[in-house]
Amino acid sequence: MLIEIDTDDHRSGIPPESPLLIEVGRALHDGGMVLTGVLTHAGASYQCSTPEALAAMAEQERAGCVRAAERLRAAGLPCPVVSVGSTPTALSARRLDGVTEVRAGVYVFMDLVMCNIGVCGTGDVALSVLTSVIGHQLDKGWVLVDAGWMAMSRDRGTQAQACDYGYGQVCDDTGRVLPGWVMSGANQEHGILSFDPTLGRGATPPADLAAAFPVGRRLRLLPPHACATAAQFGGYTVLQADGGIADWPRWNHW
Amino acid sequence: MLIEIDTDDHRSGIPPESPLLIEVGRALHDGGMVLTGVLTHAGASYQCSTPEALAAMAEQERAGCVRAAERLRAAGLPCPVVSVGSTPTALSARRLDGVTEVRAGVYVFMDLVMCNIGVCGTGDVALSVLTSVIGHQLDKGWVLVDAGWMAMSRDRGTQAQACDYGYGQVCDDTGRVLPGWVMSGANQEHGILSFDPTLGRGATPPADLAAAFPVGRRLRLLPPHACATAAQFGGYTVLQADGGIADWPRWNHW
Repeated sequence: MLIEIDTDDHRSGIPPESPLLIEVGRALHDGGMVLTGVLTHAGASYQCSTPEALAAMAEQERAGCVRAAERLRAAGLPCPVVSVGSTPTALSARRLDGVTEVRAGVYVFMDLVMCNIGVCGTGDVALSVLTSVIGHQLDKGWVLVDAGWMAMSRDRGTQAQACDYGYGQVCDDTGRVLPGWVMSGANQEHGILSFDPTLGRGATPPADLAAAFPVGRRLRLLPPHACATAAQFGGYTVLQADGGIADWPRWNHW
Repeated sequence: MLIEIDTDDHRSGIPPESPLLIEVGRALHDGGMVLTGVLTHAGASYQCSTPEALAAMAEQERAGCVRAAERLRAAGLPCPVVSVGSTPTALSARRLDGVTEVRAGVYVFMDLVMCNIGVCGTGDVALSVLTSVIGHQLDKGWVLVDAGWMAMSRDRGTQAQACDYGYGQVCDDTGRVLPGWVMSGANQEHGILSFDPTLGRGATPPADLAAAFPVGRRLRLLPPHACATAAQFGGYTVLQADGGIADWPRWNHW
């Protein structure tokens, strides 16, 4: 059993200096549980966006979790595992003294939230949803696709960040970003793509939308939040290094 | 093949009076497709909240779809099916002349969005997520549960409505509403329950939060949007009229 440590006052756990920590550790240990250590997740790192702030949060996470482990050990309790990790801190830590495990999830795929936080670029995002153009609303500047929030999830993770990608960044079928094109709206099975000049890097929308995005054209969508998008599917279609395709099932609960 | 008709300028389809309608119908029919009719979905009904507005939207949906069918038939094209439906209009239509099919989805379970629109009450919501209390943040007034957005979805459907239930309305384990208690925050696997006095109908939060919501207490959460919540799961656990339990698998794509 691991005791959750609260290193950033973001959600849950016991603060490293709390008297409750020793009390809980002793109750578990004396009650016959196998006390294996402490874990934390610095969720507050998602609000950081500079390398300095990220490194400081990683150190706060590390120091708090190691301090909790030291207090348990000083009280004569076992604490072999010291587990830290969120994707932003896992990639920003300058030291990991005393840590035995780093847990991070999103870093497997990366996503647009992580691009905004600054720990990756759009070219690093390995998870995308393949979709097809199914129609247009030309007077609204809309391209309609057959992927709505059932495909991308309802997660609008970049909404409060510097760049708001809506429900996803639109790419061509090879995964090359189409600057300014985002999924700005989502119904259950329909996605609405539109052009956002603030994300367009100087690009302009095509004069003939229907010609640029003909019905049947395949596109790829990069997710704001890879966890939420992946959870909408029962598995992954994996492009392997040798060009082959593999099917990876996923276990979809928690 | 059905032609989608745009009866509310909300998303997609061909407007009932558009010359394109006959052109598309003829192209399909002459090209060898089996033209079976027209369908529409008045998604704009989700912005209605009075019986009068709902009935007017239902009539707009019906009249537009029937008109499109009449135009196709007048042009000598087959159009046996006239399919309409969104949950708010399906329950608000005062006449259905000319309609052969009503499609609606949420009405199977109902949800908090439908409560706000006014077509059901919380007692009619048949889908809920069972969860357990796993902790507290007493100084913040938080009760933590083991259902986050992986259980409820990221859908915050009531956010722009009159009553904002966050990620869900909290009920006791029998499904009785606990007035004012909502899931106000959601992490991937953690839900944050807190008391909102504006939804409390005069109730006040308990003086001793940990005693009222002890760790292990089971609660039920009503979803803002039943479709999105159901899509997070591979199946339903169904309470049958005779008290027995059945497992219904679901097909999770579109």
